[in-house]
Amino acid sequence: MSLYFPTDAECGHHHIFGSVAIRTYAGEKIQLSVVDIPADSCVEWHAHPNEQMGMIVSGQLRFEIGDEVKVLGPGELYFIPGGVRHRAKPVDGPVRALDVFYPIRDEYR
Amino acid sequence: MSLYFPTDAECGHHHIFGSVAIRTYAGEKIQLSVVDIPADSCVEWHAHPNEQMGMIVSGQLRFEIGDEVKVLGPGELYFIPGGVRHRAKPVDGPVRALDVFYPIRDEYR
Repeated sequence: MSLYFPTDAECGHHHIFGSVAIRTYAGEKIQLSVVDIPADSCVEWHAHPNEQMGMIVSGQLRFEIGDEVKVLGPGELYFIPGGVRHRAKPVDGPVRALDVFYPIRDEYR
Repeated sequence: MSLYFPTDAECGHHHIFGSVAIRTYAGEKIQLSVVDIPADSCVEWHAHPNEQMGMIVSGQLRFEIGDEVKVLGPGELYFIPGGVRHRAKPVDGPVRALDVFYPIRDEYR
């Protein structure tokens, strides 16, 4: 078993908000979550105490954070301080994003 | 100015190990770094006390961490505990990866 290169089987696999699929891996203090949002699905309004940052990998995502809204494409970044509510919906076609959490969300392991 | 959607101008822009370009953004505790490695370039052996995790976005990267080595492709994850030396070299063509650091690396702001 590798210490540094997690296999798919060693990742956490969950569905959130219905059909949104996440693949997660926690290090010591930070946690990655590869998020796949089908075209007809969305991440509904929610908030958590954990800081969240991330980047769009593919697709176009309409992201609302607090009172702001922006359509993000590949390579664009976002920052969600702890406690700020947010939601996100694909604009046209599926979206993949990489989320990062601090501290680790145990329910996503 | 957005609180949550950093523009390119608000990101840090640095070159490391010669021609490896990074675009960084720090939140409160974690820091993102979008890394673009040209085909003929590499990230040389180094180590830092910061925990590092990340994902390959595009391309194929031969990643050595400690005593392990693996060629990673898009969507594959890596985890580098603080203090573990590592290096990386594209296999064929340029590579983009998203790195995450905890705590924030001030020299990358």
